[in-house]
Amino acid sequence: MSIKNYRLYIPFNLCEGAIINLDSNLLHYISIVLRLKDNQLIRVFNSKDGEFVAKFSHNKKDSYLTVTSFMQKSKISPYLHLGIAVLKNSVLPEMINQATQLGVTHITLLQTSYSQNHSLNIHRYQKIATEAIEQCGRFDLPNISGPIMLDEFLKVDLDLLIFANEKEIDSKLLKVQNWPERVGLLIGPEGGFSLEEAQKIQKLPHALSVKLSDNILRAETAATALLAQIVLLR
Amino acid sequence: MSIKNYRLYIPFNLCEGAIINLDSNLLHYISIVLRLKDNQLIRVFNSKDGEFVAKFSHNKKDSYLTVTSFMQKSKISPYLHLGIAVLKNSVLPEMINQATQLGVTHITLLQTSYSQNHSLNIHRYQKIATEAIEQCGRFDLPNISGPIMLDEFLKVDLDLLIFANEKEIDSKLLKVQNWPERVGLLIGPEGGFSLEEAQKIQKLPHALSVKLSDNILRAETAATALLAQIVLLR
Repeated sequence: MSIKNYRLYIPFNLCEGAIINLDSNLLHYISIVLRLKDNQLIRVFNSKDGEFVAKFSHNKKDSYLTVTSFMQKSKISPYLHLGIAVLKNSVLPEMINQATQLGVTHITLLQTSYSQNHSLNIHRYQKIATEAIEQCGRFDLPNISGPIMLDEFLKVDLDLLIFANEKEIDSKLLKVQNWPERVGLLIGPEGGFSLEEAQKIQKLPHALSVKLSDNILRAETAATALLAQIVLLR
Repeated sequence: MSIKNYRLYIPFNLCEGAIINLDSNLLHYISIVLRLKDNQLIRVFNSKDGEFVAKFSHNKKDSYLTVTSFMQKSKISPYLHLGIAVLKNSVLPEMINQATQLGVTHITLLQTSYSQNHSLNIHRYQKIATEAIEQCGRFDLPNISGPIMLDEFLKVDLDLLIFANEKEIDSKLLKVQNWPERVGLLIGPEGGFSLEEAQKIQKLPHALSVKLSDNILRAETAATALLAQIVLLR
């Protein structure tokens, strides 16, 4: 039987011969959303063990996957931590999807002076990120968390924090010559950071304030744009 | 009376003292969407004359804007022409918005071997682009058109056509040393271009095939990412 053209993230150990029991969520996703049939093959992967082919067994008694053959080792994305003010729920899922495609490893949602106060559904964002890695060929899931206060985010252990600063006049990302290991980027809310916040960020020894564009970018556009620029240069 | 914190695009001549009669669409936008009141001030601009302050007069008899004072000259975005396969209507408006923020001057929607066939509403996309330039500080409206066949797009007079090629192994945008005037970029549909199409593109003397990311990007993410990279390097 043909192999389904889909990569399925499996949060369990994978090795040839392994049997994967399916909880109701995963079974629903495989049989209803992906419409996989009994005996059909599909690719499965995780960030530790790599990518495999697995066979779906689906009958009245039980439903499980049998891992049949190894395909490729997993690749781990380099550390890239996005701190971004809480966005409206109308734009946040797509931002998470695009950031995941571009290799973000951590997304932390921030409360800032001018950020809005929306309720967050981290579980939903994790599902969006899971589908994004399945579709874009990544192996590792980004860690999504928050909201936390900006001050807490500024304590994260980073070697370089790129600050998308609307008020910056000419500093560009091209200044970075040697890219360190732990890179972060910081995007403010609509209306930017307060003067006090901006000063606090720029005082950090590892902060680099950059201008992204001559135009004022919306926060979600700024996130995708800055991630794409880092991917190019790193 | 206070000045409304909004920049309104006006597709007519602007100069100090000019009276702008409002058609029903523009009047609806100003009075209902922006909730501007009689006698209130607002910034108005176009790509030729620059940005001005104008006063809104709104009474039972008639409604018009009076241009009161000049603020700044307009800036024209450098030529940047995006050719992109027709996308689903669920993602096309946001792609147009992000591309406009990033300075695209032309968007041409393309029919390709694997592109889907969705009905396009160019008038709606132009409204989205108009709101985007109002909000991001740009002066000039991108030209949005299509769909046309890929072959027709390949005849557009360009000095450099950057081809986002999923099958490219290592060529990066950093190769471009001297950015010419007329820059284009080309993004394929889900599933990419056909082999024949890709060969035809790469045979063009002004084409540069580049790899955007280690991951497979969705078309709308690729458009924003590549535009952001060009903005950084140009």
